[in-house]
Amino acid sequence: MYRTHNNGQLRAADINKEVTLAGWVQKTRDKGFMVWVDLRDRYGITQLIFDEERTSKEVIEKATKLGREFVIQVKGTVIERESKNPNMPTGDVEILVSELNILNESLTPPFTIEDETDGGEDLRMKYRYLDIRRKPVRENLIFRSKVAMAVRNYLSKEGFIEVETPYLIKSTPEGARDFVVPSRMNEGQFYALPQSPQTFKQLLMVGGLDKYFQIVKCFRDEDLRADRQPEFTQIDCEMAFVEQEDILNAFEGLTKHLLKEINGVEISEFPRMTYDDAMAKYGNDKPDIRFGMEFCPLTPQGGIFEPKGFGVFDTAELVVAINVEGCAEYSRKQIDALVDYVKRPQIGATGLIWVKYNADGTLKSSIDKFFGEETLKEWAEKCNAKIGDLMLIMAGEKNKTRTQLSALRMHLAEQLGLRKNDEFAPLWVVDFPLLEWDEETNRYHAMHHPFTSPKPGQLELLDTNPGEVKANAYDLVLNGNEIGGGSIRIHDKKTQALMFDYLGFTPEEAKAQFGFLMDAFQYGAPPHGGIAFGLDRLVAILGGQETIRDFIAFPKNNSGRDVMIDAPAPIDEKQLEELHLKVEIKK
Amino acid sequence: MYRTHNNGQLRAADINKEVTLAGWVQKTRDKGFMVWVDLRDRYGITQLIFDEERTSKEVIEKATKLGREFVIQVKGTVIERESKNPNMPTGDVEILVSELNILNESLTPPFTIEDETDGGEDLRMKYRYLDIRRKPVRENLIFRSKVAMAVRNYLSKEGFIEVETPYLIKSTPEGARDFVVPSRMNEGQFYALPQSPQTFKQLLMVGGLDKYFQIVKCFRDEDLRADRQPEFTQIDCEMAFVEQEDILNAFEGLTKHLLKEINGVEISEFPRMTYDDAMAKYGNDKPDIRFGMEFCPLTPQGGIFEPKGFGVFDTAELVVAINVEGCAEYSRKQIDALVDYVKRPQIGATGLIWVKYNADGTLKSSIDKFFGEETLKEWAEKCNAKIGDLMLIMAGEKNKTRTQLSALRMHLAEQLGLRKNDEFAPLWVVDFPLLEWDEETNRYHAMHHPFTSPKPGQLELLDTNPGEVKANAYDLVLNGNEIGGGSIRIHDKKTQALMFDYLGFTPEEAKAQFGFLMDAFQYGAPPHGGIAFGLDRLVAILGGQETIRDFIAFPKNNSGRDVMIDAPAPIDEKQLEELHLKVEIKK
Repeated sequence: MYRTHNNGQLRAADINKEVTLAGWVQKTRDKGFMVWVDLRDRYGITQLIFDEERTSKEVIEKATKLGREFVIQVKGTVIERESKNPNMPTGDVEILVSELNILNESLTPPFTIEDETDGGEDLRMKYRYLDIRRKPVRENLIFRSKVAMAVRNYLSKEGFIEVETPYLIKSTPEGARDFVVPSRMNEGQFYALPQSPQTFKQLLMVGGLDKYFQIVKCFRDEDLRADRQPEFTQIDCEMAFVEQEDILNAFEGLTKHLLKEINGVEISEFPRMTYDDAMAKYGNDKPDIRFGMEFCPLTPQGGIFEPKGFGVFDTAELVVAINVEGCAEYSRKQIDALVDYVKRPQIGATGLIWVKYNADGTLKSSIDKFFGEETLKEWAEKCNAKIGDLMLIMAGEKNKTRTQLSALRMHLAEQLGLRKNDEFAPLWVVDFPLLEWDEETNRYHAMHHPFTSPKPGQLELLDTNPGEVKANAYDLVLNGNEIGGGSIRIHDKKTQALMFDYLGFTPEEAKAQFGFLMDAFQYGAPPHGGIAFGLDRLVAILGGQETIRDFIAFPKNNSGRDVMIDAPAPIDEKQLEELHLKVEIKK
Repeated sequence: MYRTHNNGQLRAADINKEVTLAGWVQKTRDKGFMVWVDLRDRYGITQLIFDEERTSKEVIEKATKLGREFVIQVKGTVIERESKNPNMPTGDVEILVSELNILNESLTPPFTIEDETDGGEDLRMKYRYLDIRRKPVRENLIFRSKVAMAVRNYLSKEGFIEVETPYLIKSTPEGARDFVVPSRMNEGQFYALPQSPQTFKQLLMVGGLDKYFQIVKCFRDEDLRADRQPEFTQIDCEMAFVEQEDILNAFEGLTKHLLKEINGVEISEFPRMTYDDAMAKYGNDKPDIRFGMEFCPLTPQGGIFEPKGFGVFDTAELVVAINVEGCAEYSRKQIDALVDYVKRPQIGATGLIWVKYNADGTLKSSIDKFFGEETLKEWAEKCNAKIGDLMLIMAGEKNKTRTQLSALRMHLAEQLGLRKNDEFAPLWVVDFPLLEWDEETNRYHAMHHPFTSPKPGQLELLDTNPGEVKANAYDLVLNGNEIGGGSIRIHDKKTQALMFDYLGFTPEEAKAQFGFLMDAFQYGAPPHGGIAFGLDRLVAILGGQETIRDFIAFPKNNSGRDVMIDAPAPIDEKQLEELHLKVEIKK
């Protein structure tokens, strides 16, 4: 036994006990006749004292040579601390050391192992094992583990069975790019790593498992956007004999449980909103409803603006405002900054109109030339703007304008401190479109995935008005982030074949890729549906943070590299040969 | 809601309730005026009754057309069953059906969905989703889920943190073959799938996580032996500031907990045995100690047999017996079968000597020509053989003979019914050799892995007597199966470098492969060690079964193929091109 106690454990009640502790040297203070050492481990910090009068010379001498991050073991007596530290759980005591054993030395770490470190991101990634020693990182990993356990315990209690589905599966051309794994034993053939266990969980429902879940790694070989990882973790769930309502209830239950157990927040019922409403009200299918600033369309119902000579409005498909409470006093500079914000290439707006509702009751706008105060007043009424408020207006093509105004709304909320980390506003978004238009391939793709069922009676619309077909698909949104999404699935072969056909699969392709699923549907497939939560994101949000990377033990960087172990890397020629492969880099 | 109750739920107390049920048609009995249907789901079977006098004509007509495995929904009233079935939890009641809704039809399944099916293994693998509908398979999956939850709850309670380590890591030439994953973004480079999270869990210890576990998929591209899977699941654990004793205690605790919680078996303390003793006593480093038949060496201590003209003994390095209680009456035919068994090529013995201790106190052997009754009596005393026992003797080169006799011992135990599924005999095997000789490459390899520490003071032996160096390595054996294995690790750079050097790595290779780990050891690595359990095997043994495949939802066959989804499979040329690869099959 290297220790009798850990470093977060000893209290005044332990005074006079003989103890053995082990851990890392956090810091030392050497006053010649006395040496203090802060000894750290996962559980806390305990102060050690080496005292000329009470500790042997050799031991003191050894102590003076300790460096930061040395690993030591000490034996000693718990004594009362002279100057108690009320900020430390162990602050009432210290250990008068009689024996000191250096278990391992340490070079000077490349950055400080403190809550606030001087290490940049790249350095901390390379020495991730040192970064993990810092309390905030360690606490994040412990937090993640706690959330995962809470998920498992809740779902198990509710009768869900965790089933492990395979990682070596088959590549499918639909959706994102697969990571593939060459097979040595099956020449020229490849496994693929799952983007999700979608078809397997459906087969488990066909197999009568009834309620399935799994916390499982998934893989997508995508060009990495900020804060995306090539491997990520999903809470994957599926139920048989359910309608949408059953799924929403079941997983609202899970989310409520987590909010209560993890965050101590009780929420009685999650609001619901259709996809169309979310787009109209927030320009976003994952609106943050912790704050208002809902969209207020100024365009007359079903028509366009009566031309007033202001070109932007005259030709706009949509003119839409948000009302920013209490910001009428924004300076020229502040407003210019907002204009600059929406003109960024990522957002791409051409401009921004403002209307101030001044303290004296007058209204002033950036387009006074075209619209008199009466019109401005009308707008203010429409938008429920009051004295002291600032209205911001954008105009143009409907979808684009909504997206742009949504970005502005989030930017303002951030700026005004309305996105509070300790406030939780879940929202179900329902009735998603079945298909979405893809500009690149010039055809419709499944918005969720090709196994999603259309709303009853809407299948017929596929030929005449495909963009209007709604699906039994839903997302769970928390604080402006999609934390989960799912659908009621197709469970009969005919509809599934129709869907593949519609998505551009030939019958042969559909059979080659998903024949096993369509076969399965012929042997008594029950109605079923499910949902998957992104665990990385969920944990970050519950933890009141933004970056998922902070909740992953060994994350990859934006080029998909693990800079700590330096992977990926070239492999031996012999390995390639065994896999029947040749590397061929085109210049 | 598709149902108000499941099919295992209704009891006499529910009589007169209006209920809605859904599930699969297990079977129908049609007596013209009455139709009975057994409705099945994960939870059980409920009998439905359609009665001419009380059910509408249409509904009865529909019911007569139901086939096996049709998915239906019914509404009806719970009534008392006339002929109660005490073997079914729902056997007191039946449902008088008023409404019948066919949710999905079914083709005739390729095998019967019964506890005992007529389907062969291949067919059941191809239609695994139907196989899972059978109760024994379903119960196995539920059992696995229960064991995994019990593991997680126990380890969490003990302060272990579950941390997810990455799946896309780096290939290492040491050990088994890696599955690799070509990187699209890093041309000509590859990730590897982990054979275990070994280095990552060690880095978590360097990072101060202190107690780590993870239930995690691991991958090995090996030629598959029977009942091996290319992907398998490990309960992976690591602790810092521990000695071997701490690890054994911690995981004896886990195993005791599982035996009690899952099997209701209480075991006070697990016996321990050194590797050397296990080999001498059972010829096996994972002995089944549910029964005796311990090895009884007949060779005089330190010497060889006094030549008696029996060549096999005269030249043997080892002559060793087992005593089979109560089998002196074995017939010629029975004994011949044993001889044939040991002569099988997989076992490779040249013969088997028997000595019978007859009821009349005489001794008779197959080598009476060479050894008189006095010698036989001496042997009997040595082996503790009594009247009625059968001694079986093998001779030859020590290690080979031990392995052969061990196979015979297990074969006999099987035959005599000594390997009881509901009996549990755990055993720690300790003090494994650090290295083992590899005939193929003609050099020593790490027996456990290159991170295992040698016993204190034995490092010096490496140069003079490498085969004798013992490691801080241990296995947990249950009923003759290795269910877990681990070691105390090396935690300083110097020893680790020495070990790599000894295992034939150049310093450059060691740095390229494991530089990150040796770097980490320079920054205050604590003493640490761990263990990993094979979950598939553990679950099978706790479930009283042999075949791990029966506890895996979607197993692969012996060629590493998933015959249900037909993977692996060729991929698109375009995919290959993006990965900078070309398939090159050598004829």
